[in-house]
Amino acid sequence: MAGTDLPVSPLALPLPALPAIAGLRLGTIEAGIRYKGRADLTMLEFAPGTTVAGVFTQNKCPGAPVEWCRAVLPGGTARALVVNAGNANVFTGRAGREATRATAEAAAALVGCRAEEVFLASTGVIGETLPHAKLTAALPALHAGLAPDRWPEAARGIMTTDTFPKAAVRTARIGETAVTIAGIAKGSGMIAPDMATMLSFVATDAAIPAPALQALLAAGTARSFNCVTVDSDTSTSDTLLLFATGQARHPAVPAEGGEILADVARALDAVLMDLALMVARDGEGAQKLIEITVTGAVSDASAHRIAMAIANSPLVKTAIAGEDANWGRIVMAVGKAGEPADRDRLSVAVGGTWMAREGGVVPGYDETPVVAHMKGREVEITVDIGLGEGRARVWTCDLTHGYIDINGSYRS
Amino acid sequence: MAGTDLPVSPLALPLPALPAIAGLRLGTIEAGIRYKGRADLTMLEFAPGTTVAGVFTQNKCPGAPVEWCRAVLPGGTARALVVNAGNANVFTGRAGREATRATAEAAAALVGCRAEEVFLASTGVIGETLPHAKLTAALPALHAGLAPDRWPEAARGIMTTDTFPKAAVRTARIGETAVTIAGIAKGSGMIAPDMATMLSFVATDAAIPAPALQALLAAGTARSFNCVTVDSDTSTSDTLLLFATGQARHPAVPAEGGEILADVARALDAVLMDLALMVARDGEGAQKLIEITVTGAVSDASAHRIAMAIANSPLVKTAIAGEDANWGRIVMAVGKAGEPADRDRLSVAVGGTWMAREGGVVPGYDETPVVAHMKGREVEITVDIGLGEGRARVWTCDLTHGYIDINGSYRS
Repeated sequence: MAGTDLPVSPLALPLPALPAIAGLRLGTIEAGIRYKGRADLTMLEFAPGTTVAGVFTQNKCPGAPVEWCRAVLPGGTARALVVNAGNANVFTGRAGREATRATAEAAAALVGCRAEEVFLASTGVIGETLPHAKLTAALPALHAGLAPDRWPEAARGIMTTDTFPKAAVRTARIGETAVTIAGIAKGSGMIAPDMATMLSFVATDAAIPAPALQALLAAGTARSFNCVTVDSDTSTSDTLLLFATGQARHPAVPAEGGEILADVARALDAVLMDLALMVARDGEGAQKLIEITVTGAVSDASAHRIAMAIANSPLVKTAIAGEDANWGRIVMAVGKAGEPADRDRLSVAVGGTWMAREGGVVPGYDETPVVAHMKGREVEITVDIGLGEGRARVWTCDLTHGYIDINGSYRS
Repeated sequence: MAGTDLPVSPLALPLPALPAIAGLRLGTIEAGIRYKGRADLTMLEFAPGTTVAGVFTQNKCPGAPVEWCRAVLPGGTARALVVNAGNANVFTGRAGREATRATAEAAAALVGCRAEEVFLASTGVIGETLPHAKLTAALPALHAGLAPDRWPEAARGIMTTDTFPKAAVRTARIGETAVTIAGIAKGSGMIAPDMATMLSFVATDAAIPAPALQALLAAGTARSFNCVTVDSDTSTSDTLLLFATGQARHPAVPAEGGEILADVARALDAVLMDLALMVARDGEGAQKLIEITVTGAVSDASAHRIAMAIANSPLVKTAIAGEDANWGRIVMAVGKAGEPADRDRLSVAVGGTWMAREGGVVPGYDETPVVAHMKGREVEITVDIGLGEGRARVWTCDLTHGYIDINGSYRS
């Protein structure tokens, strides 16, 4: 079983202290789905009245749990979340759909809610039938052991090839009332579909109507998870869910949200950004975290596409792995993005040192500070397109032998 | 200097015998641009009246030689081609443009033609000024030694990180007259911009007006070079030129071409396909050649985009390197292509064995023949989308430690 034996990423961050969220109990258990000797089934139970928002993979071949969540999300309320690791329940046909319904019904019976208030996520191998009888058999003991303080167990219980557990927390104010936002994520890439799909679950004790919650989540995702890539492969299972238990006592939030949520939006963005960057830090084989800033594009969307073309270029990523500030490859990636660009206005900086300006190498360019920067764990690339005001920032990791090792031998 | 020390690709093919093309003399010389102890400057001289067609990189930051060729191509005639290896003359600003003009003028003086009848290509490192004085100094001796039988030297003279020289030849009939089409290529990827850009040069003794020649080349390229990918990175220097010396005695070909060129089109397609597949066979680090066929898409264009999404997926390519018939990753790649697809109609075969049919694993699927197929040097993947009649076929290679080795340390 690959994954659990991998060395911890050199870019790992410690797990922060995670406070209890009023209205939330959680826990894990070993259901024996695929892994041995570790918890692989995670459950969160929410107080009545909890609202929910979600965003999901854009892959056209999504897993059965993604389809289940999409179908029940319009209800806007959640009472439970059940997550298994080791089997993605993707490309499993009718058996996959039956597995999601059976799991949701079993959890609903324990919680005392409708099956449509149970959210599901699965991560692991594609194309193998999910042995849902193992899940439903393990659920009663799992449910009996739920407690408010088991965030660390949950962060570990959803891991597959992740090398460290990922969590983030912030506080915010609604009116004069403090609320807490805490979340966990897994993923060693947004991607890596048969083992390391990106999952993230965030909870707050705030009372936020589902439409406002969905708007907050969509905006925050665009700035965080949608700006991270490991290898350009979009998972069939990516799922990000945000739950609001409504236990905090603060002024009522209208359905459309608005200014009253400004501080919550700031804190949520910070939580999502923390989690997204941890995914990049745990990118398969990652030795360096790469931040790519593009300015001067014709629009923000154009800047984003250029930044992602750089972030997904195998040649850029291998050059950084080799600590080679190869700006020629960055120019290539800008050019292949298909966005407006003019070679003779293009400038490239690494670690704040401008190497190329307006179409050519900077006269008298001294490589010394750039070479020193490239030896570090965090590499910054800035590209100015020189055409407009469009800006974007994205993150990725380098492409190393570790990626080949992990992905050339995962399943067997 | 990386590249020349690389072991020969296990997928290499022997260099075929290449006949002289009436109206063409060629040769190579050591100009000392970057490599030591090998020819790095190649010249082809064409008889008066030679027509020319060309296709070039779609990268928005093309090299100076690409811009030169694009500017002079509308003239439709060619008397010489000069190619250097080791320096791509890309992102070199005014100095790069001056280098192309100086080289073209020096070659034109030797041949006795206009500079605008000289075509240029450069391949190698990006962003370093091309020392064109070394080229122009070497040209007289190079020109003096041109001969009709030096195809093998030319095939080697244009190499950078290529591990074997690449050439192909076919004959065709125009009316009752036999004509010959011969060509060479370099590339270890279409891509890998600072070292292994794809270049290909093809010549025929047929007399074909430039518009008809361009139409032949565009159609053939769409079916060959544009269906090959190594790592999704589009070079700044990709150049494919087709020269027709007009020395063969056959019925006149009209400017618009037409049925009289049917057999030439067939033979040219075969030459281009041979050369394109040799590039995939020499993909950086390649251990296996992968052929991907997509059927049942809503259109041929949609099938092509799906096939390229599979061919460019790092997860598919590393799985094949690991000899793992991981069809879950193929499904993922279909889904991420953004093209119409319905998971429940999708079927996947490897080596002719259907593993998944209409959304799920084939009942009683026996992995034995697939495992055997995966151990070979050539891997065939077939995906049926189940929606329409669109078809496409593309080629790539696997993603191995060799790719990381080559690209993590090339420049330094």
